[in-house]
Amino acid sequence: MSVKELTEAYKGWLRYEKIEDQDWMNENGKWLSAIVSSGTCTTVIESAIEELIKAFTNMTGQKPALSDSVQSSYSIVLSKIEEGDDASNELNDDGYIIQAKKTDNGSAVLLAGKTDIGILYASFHLLRLIQTRTNLETVNLRENPTNQLRMINQWDNMDGSIERGYAGESIFYENNQFTNNLERIKDYARLLSSVGINGISINNVNVHAVETKLITNDFLPHVAKVAEIFRGYGIKTFLSVNYASPIQLGDLETADPLDDNVRNWWKEKVKDVYSYIPDFGGFVVKADSEHRPGPFTYGRNHADGSNMLAEALEPFGGIVIWRCFVYNCMQDWRDRKTDRARAAYDHFKPLDGQFHENVILQIKNGPMDFQVREAVSPLFGAMNETNQMLEFQITQEYTGQQKHVCYLIPQWKEILEFETYAKGEGTPIKRIVDGSTFKNRFSGITAVSNIGNDTNWTGHQLAQANLFGFGRLIWNPDLSVEEITNEWIHATFGNDPDVVEQVSIILKDSWPIYENYTSPLGVGWMVNPDHHYGPNVDGYEYSVWGTYHFADCDGIGVDRTVASGTGYTAQYFDENASMYESLDTCPDELLLFFHHVPYTHKLKSGKTVIQHIYDTHFEGVEQAIGLKERWSSLEGKVDQECYQNILDRLTGQIDHAKQWRDIINTYFLRKSGIQDEKNRTIY
Amino acid sequence: MSVKELTEAYKGWLRYEKIEDQDWMNENGKWLSAIVSSGTCTTVIESAIEELIKAFTNMTGQKPALSDSVQSSYSIVLSKIEEGDDASNELNDDGYIIQAKKTDNGSAVLLAGKTDIGILYASFHLLRLIQTRTNLETVNLRENPTNQLRMINQWDNMDGSIERGYAGESIFYENNQFTNNLERIKDYARLLSSVGINGISINNVNVHAVETKLITNDFLPHVAKVAEIFRGYGIKTFLSVNYASPIQLGDLETADPLDDNVRNWWKEKVKDVYSYIPDFGGFVVKADSEHRPGPFTYGRNHADGSNMLAEALEPFGGIVIWRCFVYNCMQDWRDRKTDRARAAYDHFKPLDGQFHENVILQIKNGPMDFQVREAVSPLFGAMNETNQMLEFQITQEYTGQQKHVCYLIPQWKEILEFETYAKGEGTPIKRIVDGSTFKNRFSGITAVSNIGNDTNWTGHQLAQANLFGFGRLIWNPDLSVEEITNEWIHATFGNDPDVVEQVSIILKDSWPIYENYTSPLGVGWMVNPDHHYGPNVDGYEYSVWGTYHFADCDGIGVDRTVASGTGYTAQYFDENASMYESLDTCPDELLLFFHHVPYTHKLKSGKTVIQHIYDTHFEGVEQAIGLKERWSSLEGKVDQECYQNILDRLTGQIDHAKQWRDIINTYFLRKSGIQDEKNRTIY
Repeated sequence: MSVKELTEAYKGWLRYEKIEDQDWMNENGKWLSAIVSSGTCTTVIESAIEELIKAFTNMTGQKPALSDSVQSSYSIVLSKIEEGDDASNELNDDGYIIQAKKTDNGSAVLLAGKTDIGILYASFHLLRLIQTRTNLETVNLRENPTNQLRMINQWDNMDGSIERGYAGESIFYENNQFTNNLERIKDYARLLSSVGINGISINNVNVHAVETKLITNDFLPHVAKVAEIFRGYGIKTFLSVNYASPIQLGDLETADPLDDNVRNWWKEKVKDVYSYIPDFGGFVVKADSEHRPGPFTYGRNHADGSNMLAEALEPFGGIVIWRCFVYNCMQDWRDRKTDRARAAYDHFKPLDGQFHENVILQIKNGPMDFQVREAVSPLFGAMNETNQMLEFQITQEYTGQQKHVCYLIPQWKEILEFETYAKGEGTPIKRIVDGSTFKNRFSGITAVSNIGNDTNWTGHQLAQANLFGFGRLIWNPDLSVEEITNEWIHATFGNDPDVVEQVSIILKDSWPIYENYTSPLGVGWMVNPDHHYGPNVDGYEYSVWGTYHFADCDGIGVDRTVASGTGYTAQYFDENASMYESLDTCPDELLLFFHHVPYTHKLKSGKTVIQHIYDTHFEGVEQAIGLKERWSSLEGKVDQECYQNILDRLTGQIDHAKQWRDIINTYFLRKSGIQDEKNRTIY
Repeated sequence: MSVKELTEAYKGWLRYEKIEDQDWMNENGKWLSAIVSSGTCTTVIESAIEELIKAFTNMTGQKPALSDSVQSSYSIVLSKIEEGDDASNELNDDGYIIQAKKTDNGSAVLLAGKTDIGILYASFHLLRLIQTRTNLETVNLRENPTNQLRMINQWDNMDGSIERGYAGESIFYENNQFTNNLERIKDYARLLSSVGINGISINNVNVHAVETKLITNDFLPHVAKVAEIFRGYGIKTFLSVNYASPIQLGDLETADPLDDNVRNWWKEKVKDVYSYIPDFGGFVVKADSEHRPGPFTYGRNHADGSNMLAEALEPFGGIVIWRCFVYNCMQDWRDRKTDRARAAYDHFKPLDGQFHENVILQIKNGPMDFQVREAVSPLFGAMNETNQMLEFQITQEYTGQQKHVCYLIPQWKEILEFETYAKGEGTPIKRIVDGSTFKNRFSGITAVSNIGNDTNWTGHQLAQANLFGFGRLIWNPDLSVEEITNEWIHATFGNDPDVVEQVSIILKDSWPIYENYTSPLGVGWMVNPDHHYGPNVDGYEYSVWGTYHFADCDGIGVDRTVASGTGYTAQYFDENASMYESLDTCPDELLLFFHHVPYTHKLKSGKTVIQHIYDTHFEGVEQAIGLKERWSSLEGKVDQECYQNILDRLTGQIDHAKQWRDIINTYFLRKSGIQDEKNRTIY
């Protein structure tokens, strides 16, 4: 890591800025001068200590003392909670307590967990408390993560490119080799661990020729090195595998999951992997999807396909994470009966109960593909005998590609709170994917990463908030958006109330703003094919991808009702099915996802659809201009390099928002012939 | 050349099939047994003799005798016409006569020219006469090419790719080197020379990093080898050059054409080139176009830019071919005043008279870019003190990419016959570009090649007809389409009357059919961006490329009139300007190129625009089906490999034509809301 790279932006939310608040220091500084760690010093505990020392040194200007027993009146004490301790029953493996305790001649702040990882998480939590200037005197909290698996998927290719990456090249690979910059990988591990991430798959789910060899002796020693770094931060390493590996690696002529040679091949392969990485997490698999190989080739289903891998992994405690993003990507646009939204449910629901215990189905939040707005996937809660994980996308593929600010925590929060009615009222998605509703062996939440080797990790520095927020939200989905936002801003930009207020507003408003000037009312897409950046209303309209809006001179939208459409609404539990089926109860923001309506249809807002389109698009651009004005007011109050980065992106966002506005409005004016009521310029 | 490659398809129109017609052989076979060549045996004469021997041997089964004086009663005699001979005045340098002459004890067929090249052309012509079973007894003809420069532009890159190539990789390059397959280049030279081509630029007009070095010692020895092959067939070699070469090659910091160092740099560079290739043709230059460097960078105009190169080439007899494809490719679609069609005229017309004598402006046939139908470029004839060349595109970039059959000779013929009125009636384009109207020092016609390393050269074998026909048509633009077609079919498929009839019809109908199911009434585009294959009505509608149709719910078309539009019509001479300006006189097939009209506008055909769109698109598909039926009837009558190649392509064409039909019809039904009068299926 060159000095140049260690900019404020690079440090992200682990900046540990010098504390200028003398009042706080007067009351709390004393605890930051000594660290006590009495137990065995594992690599995870080492990570915790290293982080605390670095942080305290930067924050106070004094390096804290480190000892294995309490030697001063005030100290931070790392300690293990043993089975049988009172606190033990209140904690799960990753849980911890932080508690200020009087001692004979002072006070200790206890960071305690049942495991080293719990202690590491407690350390990061303590640092957040300090960053938000919490008084330590009375601190007393207990934390358990709600979700067991808290993962990140890297879509990195070994040539250094990142599929849907918008922040430079891979930090893991270049020129079809692992990079030597292990320090940067460690810094990434710190960022992830600080918000509770405990698993990472380090290569793209589309596994190309070179990456197929990651599970061979060619690359396993390198994978092991990376896994070692992550292990020090409590993060298990996973690999995405090519389902056709037995063929691609030249050993067999088939990859049929029911073929004995194939089954044995994978068993041997898994043995190899574990010989290098004893705590290896398992495989992430994209099979029979978008031209990837899979069990369909051999007339087998996805249960056959995943169970075969699961059997190989089971003896080692590994799991198979099997993606449900399976649909016909060679659809004929003329065939209105086929509905891509139906595909995952139609493929997987009939297989409920057939998957092994160590298979988890990974389901994207919506049935389409990470649109700015779409319905939630009806698969959540629909398979009560099958492990499920939710997949979010932190990288902003369809939400501005980190050139636009689009804070996704509010979207994810809304999705997690969505009531599925899977077991009647009280079973929102967050209670499905945390495993509590159906008592799953495995469950959790994952997301596609948004980082690359740009100095500030995420291209747009405000996009760091999405990575931070993802970790915090899946640790505890009951956290409010405001709590998460507040933590991130304090850690990243400090405690100037003006900065906190303005950045909060920018983040909070950004998703609705982006939605305003892009595709309206839940219909999605309308982007340029392939790269998915920028407006193209008919970009996918006549394509094989199954992503249509059916706009004509009278109206727009996809009829997914049972009564007259594709019948997709029936995939939801009754309460939601009937809500979406009826025009009267379908929420405005998803209207065009579920119904084809005339442009003159009146929304619940009282506006017609066409006027809504015009108004939101004009408004969206004005709001984007407002974002920049708001940010400009902070010059001098945040790090200058960060200031400039965000200012430049906001400037670009305005121009691009205008393109969106003008193309969408022009498209609909030309198509509908209905004039804007306010006579604004439409081309 | 492996034996496998020497298929019938590879041989193209130089097949020299065994003559089975005994009647013809009885009367004519006698001449094919002896060849007499008395003059100096130059490489060009060697080429002629080699071709005749190969052809006669294959056609008759007997190798002809070769001698330097007449020794048998009947023979083919190659002879040079000296200055002062009667025939001399009737021939230009490339001209020739073919004449049967009684001798003492028989008859000789004389192939005579003022130059070796004339004699070579005469030899190829004789072979065509034989292929079409012409009786040689009374043959007596004189030929002079109408156009002085008859060129081919290869858009080949040194990595082996071909820009807009649809028939495999380059035959010249692979892996950033010249290929070793010189035999294939020689066969290409034979094909080109046989139809009179006398110049070729061997690299893409978009000159990338490696190709920039073609004018350096790294590559000039290889260029010289290729030039040597072409020289043997009377073809001069040209190179496309990077205008920024002085900078790119690392020698200077500017490429300013008025900078003395730059001028000297090019003079030295040209000297180098001629030291390797003494008859080097000159440079082809794409400057200030689509992000290519050019004189605009230095505040200079295109006369400054080209004259500088012209001065360097002048001492060696070289020329500069300067492309006029200059326009704003970063246009804002919201700005309706800018009209890409105007660009070439607006840029170049004001410079008339400022170009050196050895500069030729190369002008695409239309003002846009090789659409299936567009107006002709108003630059033709508009610059009476400037050399002009016409550029056609043989490679079917916008006309089906050699997956669809689209015989372009009828289109080119129409363009050449177009009356410009540049000097009143009687100055069609063919009389501008042949130099006769303005007595230009240099003039001619060029085209972008359609060949690659596919076995049959052109992917779709019927596309060979476009290469053949191009050569024949520019040799003599007065030839009829039927004459050219007839020659090609006889040479390629033999003399079965059924084959000749059916293939004639397929070729003749193919362009109108392709036009029927693609973009209507001259509006052009409506293709997928970048690769330009397949329908995408709005593909370029909101882009920077300046290629719009402005369809809304009421109507469609680009208003290019003076009265209410971009004023483009005024670039034509009065007669044409007023024809296009008025809705009453603008021809139907260009209606939407010049006017924006309601869908209900009545065409001269009596149909509305919208009904015309529906009808032609339904009809086009039926016609495509008809093409396949017609071809199927020829099974067994043509070489089986050729048969299958064409059948497969015609089958694919039908499917793709249906995509075109359905997307275009659906687009316009949705947009206009006007139903098809015949209630056919529109999606």
